[in-house]
Amino acid sequence: MAAIEEQIQSFREYVRRMIDYKSAIALLGWDARTKLPRKGVEARSQVIGTLSTEYFSMSTSNTMGDYLTTLLVHEQDLDPVLQRTIEVLKKDFDRMSKIQVDRYEKFIVLTNTAQTVWEEAKATNDFAMFEPYLASIVDFQKEFIGYWGYEGHPYNTLLDAFEPDMTVDILDQLFAGLRQDTVALLSEIEKAQPIDDTVLSRHFDVERQREFCQHVLRKIGYDLEAGRLDESGHPFATGIAPGDVRITTRFLADFLSTSIFGVIHESGHAMYEQAIGENLRSTPLHDGASMGIHESQSRFWENIVGRSYAFWQYFYGDLQKMFPEQLADITLDQFHRAINVAKPSLIRTEADELTYNLHIMIRYEIEKGLIDGSMAVHDLPQIWRSKMKEYLGIEPPNDAEGVLQDIHWSTGDFGYFPSYSLGNIYSAQLAHAMQKELPDFDAMIARGEFAPIATWLKQHIHQHGRLLTPKQLIEKATHEPSDAKYLVAYLNDKYRTVYGI
Amino acid sequence: MAAIEEQIQSFREYVRRMIDYKSAIALLGWDARTKLPRKGVEARSQVIGTLSTEYFSMSTSNTMGDYLTTLLVHEQDLDPVLQRTIEVLKKDFDRMSKIQVDRYEKFIVLTNTAQTVWEEAKATNDFAMFEPYLASIVDFQKEFIGYWGYEGHPYNTLLDAFEPDMTVDILDQLFAGLRQDTVALLSEIEKAQPIDDTVLSRHFDVERQREFCQHVLRKIGYDLEAGRLDESGHPFATGIAPGDVRITTRFLADFLSTSIFGVIHESGHAMYEQAIGENLRSTPLHDGASMGIHESQSRFWENIVGRSYAFWQYFYGDLQKMFPEQLADITLDQFHRAINVAKPSLIRTEADELTYNLHIMIRYEIEKGLIDGSMAVHDLPQIWRSKMKEYLGIEPPNDAEGVLQDIHWSTGDFGYFPSYSLGNIYSAQLAHAMQKELPDFDAMIARGEFAPIATWLKQHIHQHGRLLTPKQLIEKATHEPSDAKYLVAYLNDKYRTVYGI
Repeated sequence: MAAIEEQIQSFREYVRRMIDYKSAIALLGWDARTKLPRKGVEARSQVIGTLSTEYFSMSTSNTMGDYLTTLLVHEQDLDPVLQRTIEVLKKDFDRMSKIQVDRYEKFIVLTNTAQTVWEEAKATNDFAMFEPYLASIVDFQKEFIGYWGYEGHPYNTLLDAFEPDMTVDILDQLFAGLRQDTVALLSEIEKAQPIDDTVLSRHFDVERQREFCQHVLRKIGYDLEAGRLDESGHPFATGIAPGDVRITTRFLADFLSTSIFGVIHESGHAMYEQAIGENLRSTPLHDGASMGIHESQSRFWENIVGRSYAFWQYFYGDLQKMFPEQLADITLDQFHRAINVAKPSLIRTEADELTYNLHIMIRYEIEKGLIDGSMAVHDLPQIWRSKMKEYLGIEPPNDAEGVLQDIHWSTGDFGYFPSYSLGNIYSAQLAHAMQKELPDFDAMIARGEFAPIATWLKQHIHQHGRLLTPKQLIEKATHEPSDAKYLVAYLNDKYRTVYGI
Repeated sequence: MAAIEEQIQSFREYVRRMIDYKSAIALLGWDARTKLPRKGVEARSQVIGTLSTEYFSMSTSNTMGDYLTTLLVHEQDLDPVLQRTIEVLKKDFDRMSKIQVDRYEKFIVLTNTAQTVWEEAKATNDFAMFEPYLASIVDFQKEFIGYWGYEGHPYNTLLDAFEPDMTVDILDQLFAGLRQDTVALLSEIEKAQPIDDTVLSRHFDVERQREFCQHVLRKIGYDLEAGRLDESGHPFATGIAPGDVRITTRFLADFLSTSIFGVIHESGHAMYEQAIGENLRSTPLHDGASMGIHESQSRFWENIVGRSYAFWQYFYGDLQKMFPEQLADITLDQFHRAINVAKPSLIRTEADELTYNLHIMIRYEIEKGLIDGSMAVHDLPQIWRSKMKEYLGIEPPNDAEGVLQDIHWSTGDFGYFPSYSLGNIYSAQLAHAMQKELPDFDAMIARGEFAPIATWLKQHIHQHGRLLTPKQLIEKATHEPSDAKYLVAYLNDKYRTVYGI
């Protein structure tokens, strides 16, 4: 056992080094998006490339292979953190080992080029320019699936990379009811009296927006001594290390929602990582359990808490004090309705809470179709338009605002989109379970008491990091498998009240 | 030759990776000093440690040894950049190879602890607490010198680490005349009418200071698209990569000089690195030639340009517009004199341009004495006081403001201090050579034309990076060896005018 103890020690050290590389890469990325001077961009890409290559080498090296083989023999004797660390690393190792290095490198070169081509294609509204690249990327996905193998639908193995254990069968079921109900609810909303949300587009001084956002962050429990708020073109949250989880936002003088709800959203991601257990430090488990679980945290805070009536019962007075001229004539009720308008729109990232999932379903269906061969890349613009028409009742006037709008396909991230809606589904289910244990939920929020919510989330989700799978987390926290009915009920409840229908 | 071409290619790639690590380490360090949240400090140290270890391993690896051996055989066939790259890396390799790993690790552990102890010793004014650590560090220096060997004085090999080719003989000679003249000039100044510099301690709005500093930076030629200005407790400049050379400063509402002259000083460092030749990219030559040459650039801009009458002929109007109330009653002459007060003081980092070198000489003499055994660590407080009395005419009331004031000895940086004064000596000599080629020097500055100065510096110093040694740079640029007489003449000229003596 002495030899194995040494192996474990050496493995821990090896993994710690990998995580340190990841931390450096995260900082290099954060800086590139928030602080990096223009002329430093080229050199920065090279540095990130060098460290990423090293990280990748370490995770697929013979050394790693030997560690995994040796330690798996003794798996039963290892503590749960070590067991799960090995499991998580082995999954990456196996996946990568099945792809020949030259094929993987070709894929990386392709996606790097494809991103640039996509940017130009989007800017010039020219799908034909992007089409051959997308076709090659889809071919690569199919090739990789061939190496990896799959059960059921070939798309399952792509899903699994972002949301472990998720399958087309489960997703189809989750989405079916959600889609039907959303479309029905949306058509009722469209018949109701429209809500005036022009107040959100009045002029709001950016410095004051910043101040208000900091105030909200402090109150809801984002630890500014273990993170910071900066600005970037596309807001994001990034966990650089334990005690250093940063968020960014964008301040628009003529649209208040961008900063406030962006900040609450990103802080949801960040509070998750800030609360991961110390026992997972310097392991790959000091991370979110999956993209879907991560998104459930940001959506929970942004929508279920941040757009609730109770939240603004507490904060609206402060906001009015900050912007007395802009908000003097707007009641709490009016404000709450303004931030909860639901309306079909073309761009996913600007969509409201209700219609957002329809945007995701379109992408999910297209990805499935491309992977199982029932759709061709060439037909996507037309497929896109007809699905938009079917689900949202509107059609993009051009491909830039249609099939070309998202970066994901150019980077080869097939299987990612469903995570966004899974986040919504999980968030409502978690909220339902939480409210059973915290029946005072709304009243607490209205009093500005967020600590019990943070404690519940920490206990059931955050502290576990990636020690448990998404499925285990949801089932332990809510005592049942994922179910979209809670999201359906929440959306109905909210929008029927907001629109008086 | 095909095999050697391949070796060269592979060596270049290896070195490029090393430089990428260095760039990541530089960013991690910059961030730690400017942006890092408090709770992220511990994890950050670990990440920096991991990458530094990797960098160190690469520079002392068998792979590096093999490259150097193989390529040195073909040295004559290599281009000058490659030749010098090999020379520079071989110097580090040889130095490190001569120290056994366990001794080096012990030294690193010692200095890490010693820094903490030093901080506490300084805070509590307790030299005895620091004494045993300093004694051990001195012993290590002597041990290392034993491995490295030396010619002439044992201190020479320590000097050489910071200022290649510099020796005790040369330094003693440079310092002797400078000390004598400085002490004499200082005693004349002390008899002259004192200058009123209280204007600098009026209240200056920090935002406006920032704006003015940005204005100065733009005018003198610091490229803000290849760098940025941030705030930190101790101002510094750091070259993160080509196109990314950042500076920091400190803004004090009740002392104007800190930000303005700090910013000009750091931009001198930064403009140096911003102008290093593209041909040196991704090699260790994309760096300053030495600490002394680096300091010559910051001192040149801060003192010779930034504290000149001509500089304020151009900028004082702008400064007055920025601070009309504070400066309405102060003429250009009065302002120029206020920023050029010379007065003995206790703390090196706060010393003026004239007395600064005396602080350095005290440290230099002590370091020499400790290394050659003519002084004992135990006696340093007393030695410090008597030298302060002799050179500056004042004595510190305690060791915190005396022998304990600097961090350098706790980090084991023996041989570093002289670089600061070498910077002053070089800067005056370079200015003298420059003024022969740009006879319009003062008038140009008074007109706000800084480009010819930047061009001269780029041509003679900056572009060469570390391709040439300090000695080569100075002799090529000024057509003679380093000589302190230019600094002496400059100081006399300036202070006799300022004080009317």
